[in-house]
Amino acid sequence: MQTSDATMLESVWSAVEYRVVGDGVFYPDLARMRRSIDTWASWLSEWSSLADEYETLAGKAEADGHVVTAGEHFWQASLCMHFGQFLWFHRPEEKDRAQRRKVELYQRAAPMLRPVAERVEVEFDGLRMPGFLRLPGGGSPSPCVILIGGLDSTKEESYHFENACLTRGIATFSFDGPGQGECYSQRPLVPDFERYVSAVVDFLETRNEIEADRIGILGRSLGGYYAARSAAHDPRLAACAIFGALANLGHLDEIPPQTQLGFEYVTGLGDRGEARARVKEYVDLGDLPSRIRQPLFVLHGALDVIVPVAQAQELHEAAPSEDKTLWIVPDGIHCAHNRYHLVRRPLADWLASRLGAPPASVANP
Amino acid sequence: MQTSDATMLESVWSAVEYRVVGDGVFYPDLARMRRSIDTWASWLSEWSSLADEYETLAGKAEADGHVVTAGEHFWQASLCMHFGQFLWFHRPEEKDRAQRRKVELYQRAAPMLRPVAERVEVEFDGLRMPGFLRLPGGGSPSPCVILIGGLDSTKEESYHFENACLTRGIATFSFDGPGQGECYSQRPLVPDFERYVSAVVDFLETRNEIEADRIGILGRSLGGYYAARSAAHDPRLAACAIFGALANLGHLDEIPPQTQLGFEYVTGLGDRGEARARVKEYVDLGDLPSRIRQPLFVLHGALDVIVPVAQAQELHEAAPSEDKTLWIVPDGIHCAHNRYHLVRRPLADWLASRLGAPPASVANP
Repeated sequence: MQTSDATMLESVWSAVEYRVVGDGVFYPDLARMRRSIDTWASWLSEWSSLADEYETLAGKAEADGHVVTAGEHFWQASLCMHFGQFLWFHRPEEKDRAQRRKVELYQRAAPMLRPVAERVEVEFDGLRMPGFLRLPGGGSPSPCVILIGGLDSTKEESYHFENACLTRGIATFSFDGPGQGECYSQRPLVPDFERYVSAVVDFLETRNEIEADRIGILGRSLGGYYAARSAAHDPRLAACAIFGALANLGHLDEIPPQTQLGFEYVTGLGDRGEARARVKEYVDLGDLPSRIRQPLFVLHGALDVIVPVAQAQELHEAAPSEDKTLWIVPDGIHCAHNRYHLVRRPLADWLASRLGAPPASVANP
Repeated sequence: MQTSDATMLESVWSAVEYRVVGDGVFYPDLARMRRSIDTWASWLSEWSSLADEYETLAGKAEADGHVVTAGEHFWQASLCMHFGQFLWFHRPEEKDRAQRRKVELYQRAAPMLRPVAERVEVEFDGLRMPGFLRLPGGGSPSPCVILIGGLDSTKEESYHFENACLTRGIATFSFDGPGQGECYSQRPLVPDFERYVSAVVDFLETRNEIEADRIGILGRSLGGYYAARSAAHDPRLAACAIFGALANLGHLDEIPPQTQLGFEYVTGLGDRGEARARVKEYVDLGDLPSRIRQPLFVLHGALDVIVPVAQAQELHEAAPSEDKTLWIVPDGIHCAHNRYHLVRRPLADWLASRLGAPPASVANP
């Protein structure tokens, strides 16, 4: 598992190049980062410098009363810190500091985003899970989708996907659960993430702006695994969409080294052997797919080097849902991130149709 | 002026790489076009193939009732045809066919865009000028900005900039005038574009949704030249923003060859010598800047190889506006297209503040 700095850097870029842009980094900034990050060692510091610049611009825009620009720039700064801390497992203190800065920057953006992102905390089993609720407006209650990030992904990364849902009339709730973002330090990986999702559903049911019988779930990668578990356990979830469908980690030894480190990290255990055993134990759908009866959408890249395409096919096959779709993207990498511009809109359209979002209005917003 | 195919292709990419993405092409599509277009001769056909794919996806989305996706995909297809026909002066029939397909695709998108783009035709001096009006909604009359594209640019290219204005409470009107898009075949380059702009202002004044005393103008490159002329002549224009500030073409021989061809093409004259003489005669602000009294914003890239930065500085210097701003972007190319992610929002913010758009609401749209 020893890899040279250059090999590591190339491996990281090949995994995240398209994802970075798909999640919202501007192309000129990607081009600049590709030029300026000449060693893996400078990854975090270069992204931090870019975040500094956006934070400065955001502050200036805010002072001048340009709240739309201020919100977008604070969010850009937050996204830079997200990718800066990404996969930075070898220096946990730096990673933790970067993660916290990401959170702070997103919170400054939140009230200026359109629609606003309302921070809420859902308490369950002694854990306060922070999340952001965004509403499509229009006055009447909306369907809602719970968005779950993957390994080393957090609620702040979903902004663009949220916008795609909101434009289609669906409210969004992105949150950090065990092992994720703000929750990681208090509670690492758990074997029963579905209980935390059910607590989120409990919360959403209390909100008048949400139609309680039209709450769906969407997860990517490890978040897709959580989404599948949750759909199997909680019949209140009215639809389940997964991209990058992970069912188990029996193949942990075969995936890219930095992703292996990620799975070890998320357990919070110091001993690598123990961590790897725990990941394999905790991340395993077993026969849960046979209990997924909701409308189900499974999307997977045929070229995925993290999750074998067979896992997606087996999950889809095993689910007794009467309404289920499997979309294998022939030229897609993990989560089909390199085809984000072609797969994410249909995912949002599918959610809108299955959650009964109003036929998308073409009137002025 | 003879250039090899490879030199031409590299020259075109260096001019448009960032503009392509800034105006809305997705990064994976840019990367694909950079790989698949291996000669300048295949430029148009490769973009057309990409347009075909988006048109197919759009038709399918429309049939399935996913109007948001359908509108966005039809617009993507239109944008592909825009860049396909771009600079394709050496085969006018192919260029014309591609231009017409771009128009048709945009019109299919128009009623499904959010907010919708309403097609109107403004008649003036025997010419029917097509344009698209988009309204920010909210019920009360809005300020409005007239957007003018540059050489070989048309109303269909402004969609993203329109969105930036609309998000900030400003209605938008993008149109083709003499020498542009749908109007080119009937009326090529004219020396008095400002008269056509005044006809557009006449039209906008008839619309109840628009605040007649809060109409501004924004132009890029040759469109910036038209914007400056219009501001000098029509005091009803309440603000003037220019990026890529062109004042005259005394330096025509020194600009990139394909851009020279563009200026010849836009005259509609067959004889190159006559065309070049006409361009120099018709494109010249003379002392008009001394008559610009509106709030003025001039933005220019210091690395611009089409318009010397001195032209922007002189325009700004000569205008007697009490409220004027000059922003020279140190690392900016023509129109600072390579810094689109940093300059376009401030341009829209400036327009919103000078046109008295309501302080941007952060409520749900």
